[in-house]
Formats: sequence, structure tokens, C-alpha cells
Amino acid sequence: MGTFREATALTVRGDGEFGAVLDAQWSVGTRLHGGYLLAVLGRAACESAAGAGHPHVSAVSGSFIEPPEPGEAVARVETLRVGRSVAQVRAALVQQGRTRVEAHITLGLLDDSGPWWSAHEPVALPPEQDCLLVPVDPPGAGFSVPLMAVVEERIDPDHLAFAFGSPSMRGLVATWQRLADGSDWDPLSLLVALDPVPPVSFDLGLSGWVPTIQLSAYIRRLPAPGPIRVRLTATDVGGDRMDEVAHVWDDKGRLVAQATQLAAVRLPA
Amino acid sequence: MGTFREATALTVRGDGEFGAVLDAQWSVGTRLHGGYLLAVLGRAACESAAGAGHPHVSAVSGSFIEPPEPGEAVARVETLRVGRSVAQVRAALVQQGRTRVEAHITLGLLDDSGPWWSAHEPVALPPEQDCLLVPVDPPGAGFSVPLMAVVEERIDPDHLAFAFGSPSMRGLVATWQRLADGSDWDPLSLLVALDPVPPVSFDLGLSGWVPTIQLSAYIRRLPAPGPIRVRLTATDVGGDRMDEVAHVWDDKGRLVAQATQLAAVRLPA
Repeated sequence: MGTFREATALTVRGDGEFGAVLDAQWSVGTRLHGGYLLAVLGRAACESAAGAGHPHVSAVSGSFIEPPEPGEAVARVETLRVGRSVAQVRAALVQQGRTRVEAHITLGLLDDSGPWWSAHEPVALPPEQDCLLVPVDPPGAGFSVPLMAVVEERIDPDHLAFAFGSPSMRGLVATWQRLADGSDWDPLSLLVALDPVPPVSFDLGLSGWVPTIQLSAYIRRLPAPGPIRVRLTATDVGGDRMDEVAHVWDDKGRLVAQATQLAAVRLPA
Repeated sequence: MGTFREATALTVRGDGEFGAVLDAQWSVGTRLHGGYLLAVLGRAACESAAGAGHPHVSAVSGSFIEPPEPGEAVARVETLRVGRSVAQVRAALVQQGRTRVEAHITLGLLDDSGPWWSAHEPVALPPEQDCLLVPVDPPGAGFSVPLMAVVEERIDPDHLAFAFGSPSMRGLVATWQRLADGSDWDPLSLLVALDPVPPVSFDLGLSGWVPTIQLSAYIRRLPAPGPIRVRLTATDVGGDRMDEVAHVWDDKGRLVAQATQLAAVRLPA
């Protein structure tokens, strides 16, 4: 089983072009995980010319165009602007000549200082050992989640009512997360954490596949070592669309990342 | 004073290229308003080949690269994918050969049906006539806001403590909004409403300019005629960055649009 770093490793092909090998381990069902794909593009942005002096991803907005397959892919980075405090690039993940994911990425220099002002307390969760490890083969899901072998996710048992056929209908799923390879979270791996499994639709009694259309993530500061707490909520479900809003706090209780995504959802007729 | 439709009108130049005339009326201080610029790009996307059968903007993620000037500009639209229910494009606003704003835009077909599930009630606001019209020249602001002549914004008087030197520090500003030209809100003009004035930083005692770095907007359904209610909040301010989260409800109390932006903010030393 490869580490996160290995699964997102790139080879330089020159002139903003990188080779990647997309690792099927970072999949949900048979589809590569959206946060993982953005992490590959984020690493390409950081390793591009624009990343010099701007070593961290700060904002990533990705459009999911066509699901890529596991295996070789090309990441192409085009610099839009390099400023004093930020650099902005466009990054595309290409396979067989077709763009599968395209993102705008803002790079900067993050630190681990706390917030000047904050509205939210970290999501309340029982201690890690009292939460339930999400298995690779969730009972009754009908598909396996290889991602759960590389991301250790422990779900609040109070948020698992959906698994017993009585979803809470609150639109809330909270989890502890660690990387199974033992490495600490960093701005790139946080992109994986911001696109959690299961989708919040499970808590609304909707068990189907929820493909991401667009996802925007902000990395707010460098995370402390240790596990992270992730809160996933929805605001509105209708017209075959759902929004998912993720907030991530580090082991010191500071918000380190947040994301919003628009996803397609199949509603009961 | 031009209407919203006139201020975002385009001339077809062929092959996904459109001419625009950016209208200084849609400015905050001397800078063109970010939501207005995304509306121009949104209209270009809708009028491009990808817009056939997908007439409405559904998701817009914009990267603000260099502020454009009022006057002539070119909007270039490149189709990324045209599917059954969505079309995805990249749109760039170009002046003097330089890309000023670039966006990924997802197009679709919206309707005015209500949500299947919703987490939020519309923000509580006093009746419109009991709220205060935001003037073009806010006392003590030190700059004028021409946008307030074309967008009628009425702010909850309870959220105006900042104007008297005692910001509430809740990180909340709620407003009623109407287009001054009398037209009803539509998916494109909602992009303007999603980037409200004043920024929520004013409610945190930070009076300076807050340039948007990246903004992601989702239009969830077609708005009913009449005014909209807009709630603007922040989650975390630190490291010279602030997030702003906007929700917009129509006159029937349904969520019609939401946005998240990452903005630069100057914090007290």
C-alpha cells in the first residue's frame, strides 16, 4: 500500500508538465476520489515555477469534467500570475488527450498561527476510540471504498443511523481522520479530507452515488500533527443537486481547511 | 444609468469570443465589482455554443488575477464538456492581452421548484422599509460605492453597529437587495448579490479594502420576482485571509444561491 506522498508523486517533464500515476487505491467504488485528484494537481502547482516562494496551496477550485482512470496521466500547469503574496495557476489533469479535471489554484505561504477571529468551535465528536472505523467494504453499500484503507476515518456513532435504515435527516456527518501511512496531514492531503466518505446525502436517506461537479477548497493554516476532525453538512438538496460543506479542524482545535462542493444527486421520484 | 442587462451586454465576435464594455457604475471604490465581472463571464458562457440546451449558470468559480479597468474587454469561452444535464466551460475576461478574471462555469437548466430538503431558514430581517438603504457615499468610508446606485441594498439596522465604531464582532451582515432598474433577479444578477457590500469584515472592526482572491457561487433555482434576502458571514479570519459565505433567499423564502470566497484582509498589527 503506497503512502499519500507516493500516490501523488510526479515526474518532471519540463515546461509546467508533469507525469503522474493515478493510484486505484484512492478510489470510491471504481472512481478515483475527487480530493485525491485535486491533491495531484495541487502538487503539480507547488512543483511548478509558480510554486517558488509560494510553497502551499491556499485555494483550489476544481471542475470535474470526465472521470480519469487509474494509471498514467499528465498534469499541466499554466501560470496566470505570480505576485508578492500569492501565485495563481490553472492546472489540468489530462489522459488520452482529454482534460479530466481542471482547477484554478492559488498558492501562498501558510503558517501555523491561530485565527485572529473565528466563528466556529470544532465539531463535537466522541473520543477517537469511541468512533467507528469506516470499513473498506461497508455492509450494505453494494460497493467497496478502497480509499478507506489509506484514510482511516472514524465516524461519530451518533451519525450512523443511516446505516440502520433510519437516517437522522440532519444533514450532518462528523469524523476523525488520519492517514493510514502514519504521516501527518499537510495542505495537499487535506484536500482528500475535504471530500469525505460517506457523502452527507447518506444522512438524508439517499444512498446512491454522488459525483462532484465542482469543488472549492481553502487551506487556512498548517495543521498540527495528529488526527483531524471533519464536519460535513448540506444546506439544500433539490433539482438533482446537493451542496456539501466541509470544515476541518486540527488536533489543536483550529480550523485548517474548508470546502464547498456542488454534487449531482438522484432524488426519490 | 444602465440596466443590469445593458451593463452585461455582449457582442458576438465569433468562435466563443465576445466583446463587453465594463461599466464603471458597477464598482466599489475604483474597482469593478467581482460579482459583476463573473456575471459578464456567465453571460458569455450562456451565449456560447455550450449554452444551447443549458441556458442557466449553475456553478461559477472565479479566480481574480488582475483588476480590469472600465471599458472594452473580451470574454473568451472554451467548452470543456457538453453533457446531457450539464455543460462545463472555461471563461476568461481579457483586457490588453492579459487575463484579468478566469472562471470555470457549469451550465444547466434550472427551474423554480422548491427544495427536497433544506437545512436553513431564510435569514431573519426586519421588514424592508425598516432597513437602511446603503448610500453611494457611506459616511466615513472614505470612498464611494457606485454599485449602490444600481443595487438597492437595505441593511438590518441591528448589523450597522460597525458604522458607529462598535462592530458586533458576530461576523454577520444581512440585507434586502433589489436591482435599481426594476428588473427581477435572475441567475446572472444573483452573482452580483452573492458578493455583497460591505464585506463582513466591517462587522469585525476591519474597515479596509478586501479584494477577492477566489469566489465560488452556486445558483440553486430560479428566483421568484421581488426582493432577495442576503446573509453574509465569515468563518475564520487569520493570516491576512478571510472567508466570506453568502446565502441568498428569494421572496418565497427558498434558497436560490450560495457562495464562498477567500479574500485578502489587512489585520491590525
